[in-house]
Parts: sequence; structure tokens; C-alpha cells
Amino acid sequence: MSYNLLKGKRGIIFGALNDMSIAWKVAERAVEEGAMITLTNTPVAVRMGEISALGEKLNAEIIPADATSVEDIEQVFARSMEVLGGKIDFVLHSIGMSPNVRKGRPYEDLDYKMLEKTYDISAVSFHKVMQVAYKMDAMAEGGSILALSYIAAQRTFVGYNDMADAKALLESIARSFGYVYGRHRGVRVNTISQSPTVTTAGSGVKGMGSLLDVSDKISPLGNADANECANYCIVMFSDLTRKVTMQNLFNDGGFSSMGMSLDAIEVFNKGLEAEENK
Amino acid sequence: MSYNLLKGKRGIIFGALNDMSIAWKVAERAVEEGAMITLTNTPVAVRMGEISALGEKLNAEIIPADATSVEDIEQVFARSMEVLGGKIDFVLHSIGMSPNVRKGRPYEDLDYKMLEKTYDISAVSFHKVMQVAYKMDAMAEGGSILALSYIAAQRTFVGYNDMADAKALLESIARSFGYVYGRHRGVRVNTISQSPTVTTAGSGVKGMGSLLDVSDKISPLGNADANECANYCIVMFSDLTRKVTMQNLFNDGGFSSMGMSLDAIEVFNKGLEAEENK
Amino acid sequence: MSYNLLKGKRGIIFGALNDMSIAWKVAERAVEEGAMITLTNTPVAVRMGEISALGEKLNAEIIPADATSVEDIEQVFARSMEVLGGKIDFVLHSIGMSPNVRKGRPYEDLDYKMLEKTYDISAVSFHKVMQVAYKMDAMAEGGSILALSYIAAQRTFVGYNDMADAKALLESIARSFGYVYGRHRGVRVNTISQSPTVTTAGSGVKGMGSLLDVSDKISPLGNADANECANYCIVMFSDLTRKVTMQNLFNDGGFSSMGMSLDAIEVFNKGLEAEENK
Amino acid sequence: MSYNLLKGKRGIIFGALNDMSIAWKVAERAVEEGAMITLTNTPVAVRMGEISALGEKLNAEIIPADATSVEDIEQVFARSMEVLGGKIDFVLHSIGMSPNVRKGRPYEDLDYKMLEKTYDISAVSFHKVMQVAYKMDAMAEGGSILALSYIAAQRTFVGYNDMADAKALLESIARSFGYVYGRHRGVRVNTISQSPTVTTAGSGVKGMGSLLDVSDKISPLGNADANECANYCIVMFSDLTRKVTMQNLFNDGGFSSMGMSLDAIEVFNKGLEAEENK
Repeated sequence: MSYNLLKGKRGIIFGALNDMSIAWKVAERAVEEGAMITLTNTPVAVRMGEISALGEKLNAEIIPADATSVEDIEQVFARSMEVLGGKIDFVLHSIGMSPNVRKGRPYEDLDYKMLEKTYDISAVSFHKVMQVAYKMDAMAEGGSILALSYIAAQRTFVGYNDMADAKALLESIARSFGYVYGRHRGVRVNTISQSPTVTTAGSGVKGMGSLLDVSDKISPLGNADANECANYCIVMFSDLTRKVTMQNLFNDGGFSSMGMSLDAIEVFNKGLEAEENK
Repeated sequence: MSYNLLKGKRGIIFGALNDMSIAWKVAERAVEEGAMITLTNTPVAVRMGEISALGEKLNAEIIPADATSVEDIEQVFARSMEVLGGKIDFVLHSIGMSPNVRKGRPYEDLDYKMLEKTYDISAVSFHKVMQVAYKMDAMAEGGSILALSYIAAQRTFVGYNDMADAKALLESIARSFGYVYGRHRGVRVNTISQSPTVTTAGSGVKGMGSLLDVSDKISPLGNADANECANYCIVMFSDLTRKVTMQNLFNDGGFSSMGMSLDAIEVFNKGLEAEENK
Repeated sequence: MSYNLLKGKRGIIFGALNDMSIAWKVAERAVEEGAMITLTNTPVAVRMGEISALGEKLNAEIIPADATSVEDIEQVFARSMEVLGGKIDFVLHSIGMSPNVRKGRPYEDLDYKMLEKTYDISAVSFHKVMQVAYKMDAMAEGGSILALSYIAAQRTFVGYNDMADAKALLESIARSFGYVYGRHRGVRVNTISQSPTVTTAGSGVKGMGSLLDVSDKISPLGNADANECANYCIVMFSDLTRKVTMQNLFNDGGFSSMGMSLDAIEVFNKGLEAEENK
Repeated sequence: MSYNLLKGKRGIIFGALNDMSIAWKVAERAVEEGAMITLTNTPVAVRMGEISALGEKLNAEIIPADATSVEDIEQVFARSMEVLGGKIDFVLHSIGMSPNVRKGRPYEDLDYKMLEKTYDISAVSFHKVMQVAYKMDAMAEGGSILALSYIAAQRTFVGYNDMADAKALLESIARSFGYVYGRHRGVRVNTISQSPTVTTAGSGVKGMGSLLDVSDKISPLGNADANECANYCIVMFSDLTRKVTMQNLFNDGGFSSMGMSLDAIEVFNKGLEAEENK
């Protein structure tokens, strides 16, 4: 499937790790839609991951970079403009990690050094990407910048821990920079709030399996998968959404507008019965 | 318990039916807090209900009125000002009914005449109350007007049907008239969005029992009950919230800010197991 | 410009009046993108308007219908399926009118018969369209239904009057039916909340010119125009947004996420100075 | 004015500096309402400020503490429980500071070391306060924890800079910890989103004067002042709001629900005229 929605556009994809990554799917779809792209991830991820295979397949240069390092991000934009032959039309930020979650520290026992890292990696890195692009004047007029988020930014999900706050921060940064970049170069900044998705990153969150199930039962269309997220990203990079900015866009089968579905309440009632019968 | 929060204030309570009604509790608490009030409900409800006992207990005149009738509402305000000896400081609107829900018609098979009634009784009546008060200049400076709502105005709950849309309409009317009345007499207009509550009205909604359970499991503080709602109403009628207006205030134990709680997901998982073991 | 995003798809467009209408632009863009469509508007609008010219240009049959009449809507779907040769993939609802606004009645002096009409034409008609489609099983699997809204559904704008409440109702209906239709046929239901736009309908709202100006100054990308709205509609009709449902999507240059912009505050300050210098 | 709403309750107030501070007013009102309190601020603020006069007047011990230091916060709770004679019923967090704002660095040229401080002082300190209280089991059953926020957490205001993101983070932390603390001890956690207010802290934000004016013109009840904020805090500390948690409560004269008011648009139009006449 290709509509040539991104024909001639230049993009940078942060955060592709393996073929379960949403960023991986976005990279594939962007190239299918006619874009030229570069890929970037941490040096460790580049060495260990399967991203080089993706780079070859898509004819995309891989630029190792730590997204918390301003210098590394500068390098990503400089090299991307060189390789792609001009200013950048779109950027995907698909980066998030919480050492507290990894170490199993609950929300009432956070390590504050780790918390700083959670924010730095998962949210401030997005500001850095935009500040670097802004200072280098690296974005093309009317360009589009996207980050991936999750509804834990608005509502509390057990186990999501300090990543919830990081996502709220990320979405706020999108709004704040969206104002600045909109006036400057007509650049859009948005976040897509995606259904819980089976990825290597997501698998770190405790009870992720249950969350996927309950979310799927509550959403009238079921959970959106990584391919469906990639399609929405393409749409947001295209010229068909030029006036959409500072928004958090739910790609979640309707979950965000649901209170309680028939399917979920039926399962819930069975669970209550099972409890009572014990 | 009394703090004299409403000492010397005059109020009108729409919608008390029996001692399960939230409006009933609000009436009791308002009088405890020093207010003088009148009570109003439909002529049928007045005849059939237990409201006359409440009126006697609280020394409150009962004024039968159909809240969809402008003339009847005029009568309520005229008589209340006469009986209470001055302009009105606070009004509670606790009225809602859906003939479609009563007749068991699902959302994809609504009767449109009935739908008109749902809106008229559950939402437009609130506009009528305020328009009448406005035209009669019946509200005291800095007064407070409240209506009761439910989170179905924001998110879809199976079974809540056309009442969800009526509550969305009600909350919008609160905002729209809050602008008008705020500039005119400094009158506040707000809605309180209450946990699902066991009342005679609420018992009409199909699957209300399950909804109460799941809501209680998801809310970190559990569901708020009618007494707790009454306390919040008192606060909103008092002089301590003079600049709070055009808001929808959740009194729900945290439900509205929850995605998924540990308690709820454990029950859900048991339900999934039970399904699989069949 | 064409990406063939709607190749082979069948659509119905409600509400095109003349070439200022958003629905008009959507119709043009949908056909450009490969869709076959029918057009519908009230019999009066069809007789008086320029819609027949549009029909000829786009090779689209025009089906006169009153969108508040269930029978007329049935006719629209029946005839559309016949003419287009199959079930319907997408529907645009671009209908709204307030007799109270037209007659210049302020929000504190609404005529309640007119209010009923505002709701019926501007919001309930959307439910009727979906209920008819549902009962006739007229929507194709994975279809997309859209209505146009405005941010007055969330925040109060002077002069927007009872249309604000009608839009809140419309958006709630989209959520409620989105749940039902999502489970039934995987059909998406969304609203696009568009910048104030110069259309024949919009021109009825008092002070619309000022509102356009202030909105344009506040929005970092400026107001979105009718063409940009049409592009967003195309995207929502396409297969690239299959899991987006029950959402209200702002196409507004960022307005909805703005508190106050530098441009607007500068104008405001000049206005304050002018006031003081008088 | 006193209703004895906080009779016998023990509280800690973070952030009173001088008699323009909201925290100062809250301290005064809390004591008026029957509470016993301790006051805390940074050692520098304690030395330089007028807080000792407040302490004497209210018979409240002043405990110097850096709210970014876990050890200092532990000291605050330990000493407060000792002095007040039991567990703590309510806490006010009124702390915020951005070095980037102070140094005049715009949002597209943030210093990232400073940004870390903005978050640490203005948001993470709130988590630390709660985590310390939680680990020391220092809150009484059904207690109430509040932080002060601003609508820049939801919408972008020119000049508010990285404080906007810090407030979004703060509100998210309130939700996340509200879930944890609600299940643990029935403790409520909320934020009050206050009108822009003339305080020593607020005066650092560029263009704060203009913002106050425009906000006042847009809000139907005008801006809420520090005393009105204090009253709302009292209400949230009292037993009348025991099931309200994880909420962001606007005390803003209606601003948050306004699009555009007549008063504001008239000023705006005069500004546009003035621009054109140049």
C-alpha cells in the first residue's frame, strides 16, 4: 500500500529497535510513502539491535546518538540534512525508559536520581530535539514533529509508575514548543497517544499483559497495533494535516472515550463471581 | 455536624423524592448548616413521595412544579422569595429521567419523541430554571447554582444510553449560563459529577449494580455516597467558593482520573480465567 | 493534488450549500481522492443553492432531504447505495442552525421551541443519520462517520449562544454512537472541531468577524480554512485512521491548546491603552 | 470569619514568604478555622522573609527546609508531628521557581541544568513531600494534600516558559500519588489551579501584568485573589470533601471554561483599530 503521501519528504526517526518497535513500522511506512529518512538510536541499541538490517532495507543511514545529549542530536540533524539533501520535513520521537520501572521500584519508593533519568530520556529529550532543530533552523517550513505518548499522562494505570508523569511532561513540552515552532516556521508539534502495544520497551511495565487485555475489551474497535500507529504517523507527517498542532491524538480504538463497555463488564462480573465462590 | 456555612442563606432544592435521593440529603444538610429552603418536585412526586415528611422535618414549604414548565418555575421562585423573605442564594437542580431508558430502548433504537423528553427534563429544565431566575432577578449577588451530573457526559458507559448525551448537554448549559450569570450578578454555575449512587432514579439504568461495583473497585477512595455529595454541595453553596464557576467537579473517589487500578485488574483477570476454564 | 486515498470508496455528504461551505470542499476533495459520492441538503437549499452545479461537476447525484426526518434520511441511504453500487464507506455531517441565533435572541432569553429546533437540526440529526444507517446496515465494515464541530462545545464564546450546547450534544452523540457502531461493524465516529470559518452558516453568528480575528491571532498557525478542513476529513475517511474513534479532533492551528499568545496580548494591550487614553 | 472547619486538625504549610503569598493567606485562614500548623520555607527565605512574624502571630513553629531535600522534608514531618502532637491532616505545597524564567531564557533556548532545577523545585518536591510522608506514615487517615497549579499546565501562555511543563508534571504527580495514597490511608491529593495572582513568585514571569488584565477581562467573575484561593484550600482540607481526589480544581472566575468574553473582545477590537490607524 502506498499513496505517495510523503513523496520527496525528508525525515528522521528516533527510537527504532527491532521489528516490534512502533518506530520501525513508521520507518518502513514512511519510505513506502516516498520519504527519504535517517534512523537514530543509542550507540548500544545500534550495536545490539537489528536496526542495521532495517537501514539496509530502507536505504537509510543510521546515526548513533544519545537523545539526552545535545551534541549528539546536533550531529543527527547535521548529518541528516547532509545525507538527505535539505531541511527536515518530519521527525518521530519514540523514546521512553524508566530505570525505576526496570528496577521494580514502586511509585511510593522512587529513586530520585533514576527519576531524573526517566524525565531526561522520556521527555526532556523531546525538548532537546526541538531546541537543536530550532537553533540549527533544520526544519522545513510547514514540517511536522511527533512524539509517542500513552493515556497514563491523563489517567493513572497501576504499574505505569513514573512513566505516567514523564508522558504528561512530554505532552506539555509538545504544546509549549508547538506554540514556539508554529509561529517560527509553521511547524506542527503533536503527540499520538497509542493503545498499549507489545514492544520491547512496553514489556518492561509490570502487568502489561493484563493491561493489554482489559484495554482491548474496553475499546470498541480493540487496541490499535503498531502498524495502525504507523499509518496515523504518516498522516500527521503529510501535507493533509498542516493546521493540526499542539494536540494529543488518541489512536486507541476508542479507549480514551470509554467509561465501561459491555464486554469488559461481563468479564468483570465473572471475576466477582469467582471471588465470591471461593 | 454543623459549621453554619449557610447561615442566613435562602435556597431552593429541586428533585428530592425520598431518603435515597441526593437532593434529600442536600436539603437536610443545608438546613443543618443554617439555611432556609423550599423544596420542589413534580405534582405526582409530591403526592406519591415522602417529600411532605421532609418538608415538615425541615420546616420547608413544598412547591409542586413541573421543571419543564416555565410558568411552574416562575411560581417556584416567586413563592420561595415570598416564603424565605428575599432573593435566593442557592439552587440545586437534581433532575433527570429518560423515557428511552425506562422503556428499555437501546441507543441504536431511540424513540425521538422520548429523546426530546430526556433532554427537556434532564437538561433544558436547568436552562429554564436559570432563565426564569435571571428574568425575575431572583438570585442574590454572589449566589450559587448547582446541577448534578455523571461522568457519562465525558465517557461512554454501556446502558447509560441517551442520559449520557443529556448530561453532556446539562454541563454545557452550566458553562454557557455561567458566563451570562457571572457577569450579571456574580452568580456561580457549576455541576457536580457524582459517583454512581443508589437512588430511585439511578436504579432505572440497566446494569447499575455492576457499574457501582466496578466503579468502586477502580476508585482509590471508593464511590462517593449521597451524604458525601451533599457535603460537596454545601461547600459549593457557601461563601468559600465565590470564584469557582463554569466547572464540572468530580466527587467520585478518584474514578475520573483513573485508567486501571490493581483491585479492578485483579477481578478482571479472575474473570478472564473463569472464561478460559469454561 | 490526489493521493487516491479514497479510491473505490462510497460516501454521502450532508450540508453542502455553496462554494464557501466546508462540505462543498470535502465533496470536491473526496472525488479528487477517488471516491464516488452523493450529495444531500434540504429541498429548499437544493432549489436555491448552487449545489446542482457541484453535482454536475462531480458527477454526484443530489438527494434532497430534511436531515431531521428519519424517512428522508432512509431515502438518502437507500438511494445512495443504489446509485453508488454498495454499502457506504464514509459520511460527512455538516449541518447546524439555530433559530435563536438567527432571531437575535440572547442566551438568557431563549425561545424553547426554537431551542428544540437548534438541537434537532444541529445534533439529533446526527443521531438520526447513524440510527438509520445502523438499522439499514448501510455502512461498510470499517467505515467512517464524521461531523463538524466547534470549540464552543468546551468553552464559552460570546454570541455563539445555544449553538454551543448543540455542539456539546453533537460531540456526545458521536462518542455514544461510536461505542455502538464500533462494536457492530468496526465503524469509526468522530468530530472535527474546526477553526471559525467564513461560511454562509457561520456568518449568522454575531461578532463572527471579531472572533475570526482574535482566533487567528491566538493560534500559532493561524486559523484553519475550509480546504484544510477538507483535507483532514479525507484523512479521517481513509484507511489510515482505522482505529481512531469517539474523538473530537481539533483542526484549529493550535487554538485549543493556547492560553494567550504574544500577538494577541500585544493587540489587547493596545486596546487597553486606547481605552485609558479616552 | 470562622466556621471551625479545621478544628483540631494539624497541618503543614510549605511556601509562605510574605503577606502577598497565597501560602501566607492559607496559613492565616487555617488557624482561623481552628487548625494548628507549622510553617516551612527555605533557610534563605526564613532568614530574609517576614515569615517569623507570621509564625509568632499564628503561634506556629517555623521549620527551615529545602523542599528538594528528602532529609529536610523528613525533618519537617518529624518535627511537625512532635510539635502538633500527632499525625498530619493536611499539607499545602505552594512552591515553584524557574531559573530559566529568572534569567530570561526563552523556551527555545533553555539551559538544561536550570530546567532540571525547575522540575526539581516546582514538581518533584511535591513527590518528595508525599513519599516522605508515606514512608513515615505521617498522614492521618482521610488527610488532604494540596498543591497550587496554573492553567499553563493545559494551555500555552507566552512567557510562562518551562514553568508550564513543571505545572503539568506537578498535576500528573498529584494524580499518580493520589492513587497510591487513596488506597493506603484514604488520603486525598489534589491541585488547585489558581487565577494569575500578584505574588512575589508570580512577578518573575514576563508580561505578568498583561496576563492578569486579560485574564480578568475574560473571566466572568474576574480573577480569584489570594484570599479566595485560601478559602478554597480550607474547603479542600476540611471533612466536607473526603471523596474528592486526583482532581485539578480551577479557582479562576471561570477563565478555564471561557473561549472569548464580550469584555475581552471589545478591548481586542480597540487594539486592532489602533493598529490599523497607525
